[in-house]
Amino acid sequence: MIKTVIIGQGNVASHLTTAFNATINIEVVQVNSRHLENIPDSDVTIISVSDDAIFSVSNQLKNRSGLIVHTSGTATIDAISQKRKGVFYPLQSFTKNRSVDFSKIPFCLETIIKEDYKLLELLVEILNAKPYKVDTSQRKKLHLAAVFVNNFTNHMYQIGQEICEKHNVPFEILHPLIEETAKKITEISPKEAQTGPAKRNDAQTIQSHLENLNLQQQKMYQLITQSIQEN
Amino acid sequence: MIKTVIIGQGNVASHLTTAFNATINIEVVQVNSRHLENIPDSDVTIISVSDDAIFSVSNQLKNRSGLIVHTSGTATIDAISQKRKGVFYPLQSFTKNRSVDFSKIPFCLETIIKEDYKLLELLVEILNAKPYKVDTSQRKKLHLAAVFVNNFTNHMYQIGQEICEKHNVPFEILHPLIEETAKKITEISPKEAQTGPAKRNDAQTIQSHLENLNLQQQKMYQLITQSIQEN
Repeated sequence: MIKTVIIGQGNVASHLTTAFNATINIEVVQVNSRHLENIPDSDVTIISVSDDAIFSVSNQLKNRSGLIVHTSGTATIDAISQKRKGVFYPLQSFTKNRSVDFSKIPFCLETIIKEDYKLLELLVEILNAKPYKVDTSQRKKLHLAAVFVNNFTNHMYQIGQEICEKHNVPFEILHPLIEETAKKITEISPKEAQTGPAKRNDAQTIQSHLENLNLQQQKMYQLITQSIQEN
Repeated sequence: MIKTVIIGQGNVASHLTTAFNATINIEVVQVNSRHLENIPDSDVTIISVSDDAIFSVSNQLKNRSGLIVHTSGTATIDAISQKRKGVFYPLQSFTKNRSVDFSKIPFCLETIIKEDYKLLELLVEILNAKPYKVDTSQRKKLHLAAVFVNNFTNHMYQIGQEICEKHNVPFEILHPLIEETAKKITEISPKEAQTGPAKRNDAQTIQSHLENLNLQQQKMYQLITQSIQEN
């Protein structure tokens, strides 16, 4: 039995607590970061709070035993002040009230001590999830890449929806295309998968598209089209 | 039994032929657009060639009976010169050698004559797919929206992959996030689903991200970030 304490009330903390509770080999206590007294001992303490607060929470746990980790995609491992420190970053977009299949989630792990890595790896394996050894510098790059494939992609969806709404076409017509676009790149590279007017230098279609966009959308359309053509 | 002829050798023509052949209620003959003589009679003739070639192919079929349609997302219905004309546009990204589940494909249908619409609708229903009544003007807007949710999204994936490769992180770590991002917008709107540094005005993270991008990526990052913040 691995004893864990999760500090924090956010989406990651809640989903992790639910997932740990569903196993028989992990014991978990979830703690509000504003009440850090009388926390039970644990093998691993998971600080799952906003990036700004990690250091101060870690400092309040100065004499705590066991491994102390955070769950951030961007904070350095040194945001934890204890000697036995680490990172336990589940790379997924968590939403309140939307259930998560942990078996599909990659965990980016980092520790100072080799045995601590094995401990985190064991947690990940009990969840049937997939562990990846990723250091702080790589994790920051991964987080940057995630901004493109998650936040910026989602914004492309938003613009698509706005165009549909403006012209009274149901956005749901595009759902299967969105799903297929996401699936395809698990089999062939995005570069190989690319199609469309930018890729085939179809100046006439590009011109007609630009005429139907507002100024901000035009700028994005032109810049992304140029980037597709040059890369 | 509905008799169909499909003219063209591209991905759409091939996938449609395969799908029609798998039904017991649709008979199909696939024809190369360079050999338009002695084509058997049919209830529906589907011209599935490049946009530029639709008009000329249709002209070569002047005295042909039945309904004549094209499969283009952008060409007007008037690209067909016959009186009984229409559009039969499957809105999906087709790839050679990648099988397609037609039951998930939305078909955008347009005809001049009401009975012809019913005929196209029947074809779609036999495929277990979903018909949508979409006129030429709406279809063009849908195609524009598709450029954002498919081509531009795919380019975001490409940039994500390039960042990963540059820093020796496997791109596959991002696959589950990509899938979840695509799934989420079938339940909540993209605007509601948005998270990340742009959304929460995290200037420090944005600055650190910009420092790790090339000039072209920086411009895209800034423009999309601004658009997220203003919309």
